[in-house]
Amino acid sequence: MEIEVKFRVNFEEIKKKIERLGASFVQEELQEDVYFSVPLPELLRVRRISNLGKAFLTYKLITDPGRNEEFDELEIEVSDFCTTVEILRRLGYKEDVVVRKRRLVYRLGKVTFELSKVEGLGGFLDIEVISNDVVEAKRKIWETAEKLGLTEKDVEPRLYQELIREKTG
Amino acid sequence: MEIEVKFRVNFEEIKKKIERLGASFVQEELQEDVYFSVPLPELLRVRRISNLGKAFLTYKLITDPGRNEEFDELEIEVSDFCTTVEILRRLGYKEDVVVRKRRLVYRLGKVTFELSKVEGLGGFLDIEVISNDVVEAKRKIWETAEKLGLTEKDVEPRLYQELIREKTG
Repeated sequence: MEIEVKFRVNFEEIKKKIERLGASFVQEELQEDVYFSVPLPELLRVRRISNLGKAFLTYKLITDPGRNEEFDELEIEVSDFCTTVEILRRLGYKEDVVVRKRRLVYRLGKVTFELSKVEGLGGFLDIEVISNDVVEAKRKIWETAEKLGLTEKDVEPRLYQELIREKTG
Repeated sequence: MEIEVKFRVNFEEIKKKIERLGASFVQEELQEDVYFSVPLPELLRVRRISNLGKAFLTYKLITDPGRNEEFDELEIEVSDFCTTVEILRRLGYKEDVVVRKRRLVYRLGKVTFELSKVEGLGGFLDIEVISNDVVEAKRKIWETAEKLGLTEKDVEPRLYQELIREKTG
């Protein structure tokens, strides 16, 4: 189970705070996410990480719809972004929303920080823990968030594709 | 466009003939193909090549249904067979038929030979050419088939999954 909480943040400010916490920098990712028209609480996404030359096909089931912090995720790496998108089109899925972001990934113990500048939306931090113990994962996430000065009012419960759709729709 | 003709053959006999033609041996593949319940003329398959540790997701549109010699094919390599199967299940596809075979792949110029021992079905040879010129590709395939002593009466127009379904259904 993937458990994560998304916060609206000032990118540069929070970057310094994450580094000050002692988190290790993992990698930078220039992501282009294509979401297909699968009805919520399911998500179907093809992601291209252009700077790493990688692509992924991801299926997510949101297990706490609306709150959007708990995901049952299945992900595979695929050899070609465009062919994967084309296969889904042929199967009848429609491209719904495209989300582009620059992401810095950090890790500290079991906690992953995904600090993103999302095109058209601004700065966001996803604090993520992979665990089957949701309560303990949430505790860990909030303990970390507090150290970064983040509170409940900074939480953005909407999905990136919902935010993009609201902006452009 | 993938153009191929499938023949029923005696595996060992035709193997010698292919080698005598001067074709180069490419690789041996122990394949497990899971076909999902997508209505013909479309095919949706996840293939595991267990001896090479590889897996592929393939979408095919049969452009000459019934004859089954011309395919518009989209294929990606995927990082994990089981997760790919599980993603398709989650999206609502049902596993239809599983085809297991031992395949020897040979190449001679633009012609690919896929010589297979299919579990429960016996020996088959697919002679394949990738080309957008169907007429020329078919000419090339038949020129090659004749050199192997194969004729129209050896052709098996049914798909592997149709043959398995007929046998087990």
